[in-house]
Amino acid sequence: MKKLINKSEDVVKEALAGMAVAHADLISVDMENQIIVRKNAPIKGKVGVISGGGSGHEPMHGGFVGFGMLDAACPGAVFTSPVPDQMLAATKAVSGGAGVLHIVKNYTGDVLNFEMAAELAAAEGIEVASVVTNDDVAVQDSLYTAGRRGVGVTVLVEKIVGALAETGAPLAQVAALARKVNEQGRSMGMALTSCTVPAAGKPTFELGEDEMEIGIGIHGEPGRRRVKMASAAEITEMLTSPVVEDLGLKSGEQVLAMVNGMGGTPLIELYVIYDALNRILHGKNITIARSLVGNYITSLEMAGCSITLVRLDDELAKYWDAPVHTPALRWGM
Amino acid sequence: MKKLINKSEDVVKEALAGMAVAHADLISVDMENQIIVRKNAPIKGKVGVISGGGSGHEPMHGGFVGFGMLDAACPGAVFTSPVPDQMLAATKAVSGGAGVLHIVKNYTGDVLNFEMAAELAAAEGIEVASVVTNDDVAVQDSLYTAGRRGVGVTVLVEKIVGALAETGAPLAQVAALARKVNEQGRSMGMALTSCTVPAAGKPTFELGEDEMEIGIGIHGEPGRRRVKMASAAEITEMLTSPVVEDLGLKSGEQVLAMVNGMGGTPLIELYVIYDALNRILHGKNITIARSLVGNYITSLEMAGCSITLVRLDDELAKYWDAPVHTPALRWGM
Repeated sequence: MKKLINKSEDVVKEALAGMAVAHADLISVDMENQIIVRKNAPIKGKVGVISGGGSGHEPMHGGFVGFGMLDAACPGAVFTSPVPDQMLAATKAVSGGAGVLHIVKNYTGDVLNFEMAAELAAAEGIEVASVVTNDDVAVQDSLYTAGRRGVGVTVLVEKIVGALAETGAPLAQVAALARKVNEQGRSMGMALTSCTVPAAGKPTFELGEDEMEIGIGIHGEPGRRRVKMASAAEITEMLTSPVVEDLGLKSGEQVLAMVNGMGGTPLIELYVIYDALNRILHGKNITIARSLVGNYITSLEMAGCSITLVRLDDELAKYWDAPVHTPALRWGM
Repeated sequence: MKKLINKSEDVVKEALAGMAVAHADLISVDMENQIIVRKNAPIKGKVGVISGGGSGHEPMHGGFVGFGMLDAACPGAVFTSPVPDQMLAATKAVSGGAGVLHIVKNYTGDVLNFEMAAELAAAEGIEVASVVTNDDVAVQDSLYTAGRRGVGVTVLVEKIVGALAETGAPLAQVAALARKVNEQGRSMGMALTSCTVPAAGKPTFELGEDEMEIGIGIHGEPGRRRVKMASAAEITEMLTSPVVEDLGLKSGEQVLAMVNGMGGTPLIELYVIYDALNRILHGKNITIARSLVGNYITSLEMAGCSITLVRLDDELAKYWDAPVHTPALRWGM
């Protein structure tokens, strides 16, 4: 294992310390509770929006804390759910009296821990709504989930819902919009290589020199099938078809498209995939009206990519376009 | 070789096609000349700012075309200089009557071709100034250069100078600022792994499972020394000390610091390096007043990082803070 780290048990703590100084204008890090909190939180009268999950998926979620997106993020150990105490601390840190939304990726550990945190927060008088994302069309149940896994759409939910929360909308409306984005979004990913969890010290799985895994999870958990290497055009087709089909996208519709890198894939290849995606959708008379290309929900240094499509309407486009200012996503300000 | 590509000879062309559709609001791509041009170019009375070099370093340079940074970029084949005809086409495309600045990384091929392009442009009545970046303290002469290599500071030159050009400043002043940033900036990089040029099909070099290369170039060319793996803190010290020493940074000074990923290193590790850098500089009473952490000048999927420091004064801070809107760098708008 070759990594730019010190002790494997210090990786998350030291990365958080680095984030805290690099983005001191936007966030503060509560090192004791291991949470990243928006600088001016809590904001009176605003719904607090938080998310969390295992580390190793950076910039998600900590890189999305700031104006117009998350109020706090709870990073667990690498590929490990954060604990309810962290989630409770984050909930309290962003509670401005209008309730708090928990955005939870569908993994059993995350779901259980966020449920417990919500109960603890309720006991302290904080109203919590939870929305579970489950956009991965690759598998029904999986190694770590009952039902579909929550993957790329989570990034887009956080952006869109964060913009609505910024307007002072009530908790029920913010939660409803989160559910809507999740329902209108689907993803599928693939890997060319495995990744190595620092504490494990060896690759999570092995792939042959001529193999790839289609439908991979973001923790290296198995996908739909392991197949021989193929071209970018073929790979894009393998990912896009199930997404388009499951979402029931029809000719004439518009989408928000994310081509996401898994962490170890160069940007030049992500643009090759985006070109292929654009051709496929153009052939179906589906228009990419908004897009995002880059590393947003990663699996450490895994090489590969995922594609997320969200059916776009005026409401979603409006909140997507709204200003955002976080370490990893910024526009309009 | 496992990559998300179709034919190796089509990688650059297809990535440019992907960029063109993903960022149609900001750039247009002239596929015949293989250049990326700012949407509203040429801008009358504004100095045009262009750069270029081999592909495989994305987002540099194409990802930096837009408001407040570059007016055009000329990507060559992977790790190969663009040709004078591309540079001439880019120069003409951005010439608004106030002259054009060529920002050239110090590699023999790039320097020669940009010189020829400048002569051709002059023959067509376009005034051109050229600034060569040479910030890499790792080696004096190298495989591809006489003198130091131009690396990370190039990104910072492009941002700062692009902001000045946006104000309508004359060519001589824009070129002088580019020279100043280069003179006040130094970099050093390292690699944990090699990378594979698509057309070559095999890794550029080999590194053992317990080895790393300190002072690596952005094309995998050799660095200062090959050493045994070390901790993030030790690696950061190996990169920072030569930079601080060569720049003659003194207690009480301020810097702009970039911790840059080589393409295959996860963001969580870059923040660990940033934390270590911050500690080292803090110990020398040098303040990081501005920072950038992420993949900005890469070597395909190489794992590793580089550190660039620029001595900061009020003038450089002002142009660094100015609005920018490009595919890869955006703030203030």
